[in-house]
Amino acid sequence: MGKIVECVPNFSEGRDHNIIEAIIAPLKNKSGFKLVSYEPDIDYNRTVVTLIGDAEAIIEAIPEFVGWAVKLIDLNHHTGQHPRMGAVDVIPFIPLEDTTVEECVGFANTLAQIISSRFSIPVFMYALAARQPERVSLPNIRKGEFEGMKTKILDPLWLPDYGKPEIHPTFGAVAIGARILLVAYNIDIATKDEKVAERLARTIRQSSGGFQHIQAGPAYLEQRGHVQVTMNVLDYKKNPLYRIWETIKMEALRYHVEVTSAEIIGLIPKEALTDSLKYYYATQDRKFLSTISLDDIVSEATKYMQFRDLSTNKIIEKYLE
Amino acid sequence: MGKIVECVPNFSEGRDHNIIEAIIAPLKNKSGFKLVSYEPDIDYNRTVVTLIGDAEAIIEAIPEFVGWAVKLIDLNHHTGQHPRMGAVDVIPFIPLEDTTVEECVGFANTLAQIISSRFSIPVFMYALAARQPERVSLPNIRKGEFEGMKTKILDPLWLPDYGKPEIHPTFGAVAIGARILLVAYNIDIATKDEKVAERLARTIRQSSGGFQHIQAGPAYLEQRGHVQVTMNVLDYKKNPLYRIWETIKMEALRYHVEVTSAEIIGLIPKEALTDSLKYYYATQDRKFLSTISLDDIVSEATKYMQFRDLSTNKIIEKYLE
Repeated sequence: MGKIVECVPNFSEGRDHNIIEAIIAPLKNKSGFKLVSYEPDIDYNRTVVTLIGDAEAIIEAIPEFVGWAVKLIDLNHHTGQHPRMGAVDVIPFIPLEDTTVEECVGFANTLAQIISSRFSIPVFMYALAARQPERVSLPNIRKGEFEGMKTKILDPLWLPDYGKPEIHPTFGAVAIGARILLVAYNIDIATKDEKVAERLARTIRQSSGGFQHIQAGPAYLEQRGHVQVTMNVLDYKKNPLYRIWETIKMEALRYHVEVTSAEIIGLIPKEALTDSLKYYYATQDRKFLSTISLDDIVSEATKYMQFRDLSTNKIIEKYLE
Repeated sequence: MGKIVECVPNFSEGRDHNIIEAIIAPLKNKSGFKLVSYEPDIDYNRTVVTLIGDAEAIIEAIPEFVGWAVKLIDLNHHTGQHPRMGAVDVIPFIPLEDTTVEECVGFANTLAQIISSRFSIPVFMYALAARQPERVSLPNIRKGEFEGMKTKILDPLWLPDYGKPEIHPTFGAVAIGARILLVAYNIDIATKDEKVAERLARTIRQSSGGFQHIQAGPAYLEQRGHVQVTMNVLDYKKNPLYRIWETIKMEALRYHVEVTSAEIIGLIPKEALTDSLKYYYATQDRKFLSTISLDDIVSEATKYMQFRDLSTNKIIEKYLE
């Protein structure tokens, strides 16, 4: 078995089922990696694909996937709420297991070389694979989007890292990079008052003096009719979920609002859940067994931290067997 | 009324009552500032003096205080557990009320100029008044102490900021600087196990991923027979005491140890206590009145956060009337 990574290509079609299926097809039932999920969003007109497995197998499969996007998507006729500059817009590699972030930077460069030479698509290296500080931030690269990139790419500051300074006429350009694993964790608050969520977010986020590895802000969930504290946990080992959950509950007491439930967006490593179970078990003098099954992790974590939709499908280790 | 500051000179005598009183005398009963306290420590052989009031009045009085230290202390015959390089070892200015830290840097330089020219004492500017990055840290300047400073000061890297590169033969050298107000806050844990205090400290300190403005470590209190989490709260507005207290209590549950009490070392601004009272009042739907007296702040804060020795003498505002 080679180097294990998560890879999350985003492509700019979230409405036409036939097109989505055709583009996705080369990623299905491959040996060496698993297609964990693909989630089209109608408003965004965009699909997020999650792959887990051997980096070399993923790098071998992605060009065919990109080839179908080249054939089937024309950004000159694309609308949607999410900013985009490419038919395949961004491809990040995330280290899992014993893989390092430096190795992921290597995989990103290998893939960038293939994509740019095979399809004449300009590639920007971003996040931890960025070669210039202005390119660490994806929104910074993507500013101006497909339409603006035609001229932006001529600016000496914005020459692509691979390929010629000229967008592909229908595909545009793509960002390829490496980033660390983060946990997207949201806590539901039983109120419609977004100010309460903003104040709670401030108590725990790094930028307001809170925990070191937390980004947090308020969100209003129209359909569910309540607010959330929506978070990225950038280091789940140093800022474990139970501590965030308990701190938010403690702070919420002053606003007399109920902290009702929580959700994980995307995937979560098993350890991020078991670390928190260990806390709750210790408070109750329960013995924690490292042989606990994924099913039991889900039911126990749901009991202690009120997840409303946790399942083993969200646990990375499920895809590593 | 001029610019209000706290000034905390430390001098290197903590045993001989007569010498301590003679050195302190010029700081007693002066108009413009108050001598809040002076606390000799026998083991350290050192006395910490706390002054609060008008910066200009303090700057006018300190040279006479330094003059007595020059006459009465000879570091060639000084022993004690605390590192020291001068008979008066360090003089920090701390902004209070509407004073800025930049103004305190100015006061530190004014005093440094006077001390070095009047007594031929070399002065190092430190903390926020440092002129070189190596001089931000006082322990870094003081390394080698009185004995080592004789040669260290000849090193081009360690030329003093004021005065000649030559220590005063009996006094040594002094560090003068500016720093922000911090709250020294300790939480008592009913165990002798220092590892528990270390683990609790790690959950909240910035350097281990915790709150942004907290330095924390474990301590064992020999005489009291239990451990503490000992902390510097560098920004009490962003990391309020109630949040630290409640987080430590939550974390302590996993070790089945009781969080029994807490203490403030030195002074605390009123707002650091009332901010926490506002939290507890809100959780109980009690109305907080901003007209609350200092006595009531002490008794209420003691009730909610178990201070074991809080009194109005510890509240800065007592000295600002």
